[in-house]
Amino acid sequence: VGVNMNFKNVMVVGLGLIGGSLAMALKENNDINIIGFDRNLDALKEAKSRNVISDYCTEPAQVLPECDLIVIALYPNDTVEFIRNNVNHFKSGAIIIDTAGIKNELIRDVQDFLREDVEFIGTHPMAGKAETGFKSADRSIFSKCKYIITPTARNKEENINKVIKLLKTMGAVDIVTVSPEEHDKIIAYTSHLTHVVAVSLICSGKLNVDVSDFIAGSFKDMTRVAAINGALWQELLISNSENIVSVIEDFEKHISMIKKAISEQDRTKLLEIFNEAHTLRKEIKL
Amino acid sequence: VGVNMNFKNVMVVGLGLIGGSLAMALKENNDINIIGFDRNLDALKEAKSRNVISDYCTEPAQVLPECDLIVIALYPNDTVEFIRNNVNHFKSGAIIIDTAGIKNELIRDVQDFLREDVEFIGTHPMAGKAETGFKSADRSIFSKCKYIITPTARNKEENINKVIKLLKTMGAVDIVTVSPEEHDKIIAYTSHLTHVVAVSLICSGKLNVDVSDFIAGSFKDMTRVAAINGALWQELLISNSENIVSVIEDFEKHISMIKKAISEQDRTKLLEIFNEAHTLRKEIKL
Repeated sequence: VGVNMNFKNVMVVGLGLIGGSLAMALKENNDINIIGFDRNLDALKEAKSRNVISDYCTEPAQVLPECDLIVIALYPNDTVEFIRNNVNHFKSGAIIIDTAGIKNELIRDVQDFLREDVEFIGTHPMAGKAETGFKSADRSIFSKCKYIITPTARNKEENINKVIKLLKTMGAVDIVTVSPEEHDKIIAYTSHLTHVVAVSLICSGKLNVDVSDFIAGSFKDMTRVAAINGALWQELLISNSENIVSVIEDFEKHISMIKKAISEQDRTKLLEIFNEAHTLRKEIKL
Repeated sequence: VGVNMNFKNVMVVGLGLIGGSLAMALKENNDINIIGFDRNLDALKEAKSRNVISDYCTEPAQVLPECDLIVIALYPNDTVEFIRNNVNHFKSGAIIIDTAGIKNELIRDVQDFLREDVEFIGTHPMAGKAETGFKSADRSIFSKCKYIITPTARNKEENINKVIKLLKTMGAVDIVTVSPEEHDKIIAYTSHLTHVVAVSLICSGKLNVDVSDFIAGSFKDMTRVAAINGALWQELLISNSENIVSVIEDFEKHISMIKKAISEQDRTKLLEIFNEAHTLRKEIKL
């Protein structure tokens, strides 16, 4: 564990699954002082007793003036509110990063009121688990995980590189840089649409029979994320509504085309669509 | 390995993934004589040399008069054609079972021309793998697998029980009996719809960017079956077209409702749908 020359005091805000795991992975790989903050005092106490954080605070305003980096692992709206409520307390030159699954609206909102001498850099780890809360935190979720960062013209190259260097200490690989707009457009397809589809799948097919005996791997895999965290996901989807409505419409065109081919018994058309799907799936690097 | 009192000579027709795996699992657990038949002579020779079958034939008509059980592991249309072409060669009292993923139309077709002294019993193992062909055959796919059988009024109780007993020797559990109509209706939801959705998912979202860096678990899981075997699946879907069109329409209603809630920023409605999905997914026994 080497001394981190860039960050001495780091506040992790929100010790849920992501924040808790992040604190673990950061502390294990960096000689930094991690201060935890969470509305849930029990989570803070447990994190401290398990040595996941160096210490915790219940009044962030008192500690923020000493923090070089603030890692926020809250829902999108709460992320914005935390920064807004504490905007006068950040140390000059501090860097704030978040972990939310949408970027465009959130970053625009934050930059509207953020002080000129503090930088916000959006980050989105492609990591997670079905479970939530500090009890499920696991340092290994960042090992070999893909990480997206979405800097803007307001971010200094030097600060972006400091953040990338820190994420790499946790084991993150494939750290990709895209604009917040591009991030939300792509994620609308690769993540938001899949969740909408899984929910639609589990909610349809009301057959009044127990389908458990008829379930094979595809149904199990495709409905896994339907056990959705509604409070979080309504925020993500509404914040990215234009992109999502657009990919849902594209998806609807394709399923409607397949439905038409099935109902018209058009074997040639079905085979053509299936062969395209086969090729597209094989092309994706996973 | 005990002597099977019900079946002495068993023909396995089609030594692909399912037929090859079935032959392995049957031979390992029963003292029966398994004769393989396949259009592909190389597969037959390899199966014989690996002792997966006792012997093979290239002219089923010559061997069928000695067979007590015929297990057909072909595509649905080829299953019907094999029985039609050999209808005069079956031993009196023989039982024929299949493994196709649709049952209603297939069984109706077969019963239209099958001799009165031969029984066809539809079966559908909930087992498989992404790979195809004898090279991927694996006796363990039937271990603890769910198995659906779809007898009709034409099947004797005694013969249904003989088949169930045999399937159990391979390790099949949860052997469920439903009518062919009910089978196709439920499978339209739990299997056919999921494949249609996976294909639609991979075919939409044409973003002209490499999305690989933005893919997390949900996208990977939900598009796994999109690398579909088009030749087989166009048969399955067209044979079950009415049921599938009906579940696709139900699915379309749900995704359209979510789209509407997102575009109207209706947080209450989204939360209600997501909470229902969460409950439904948790209720399913997997």
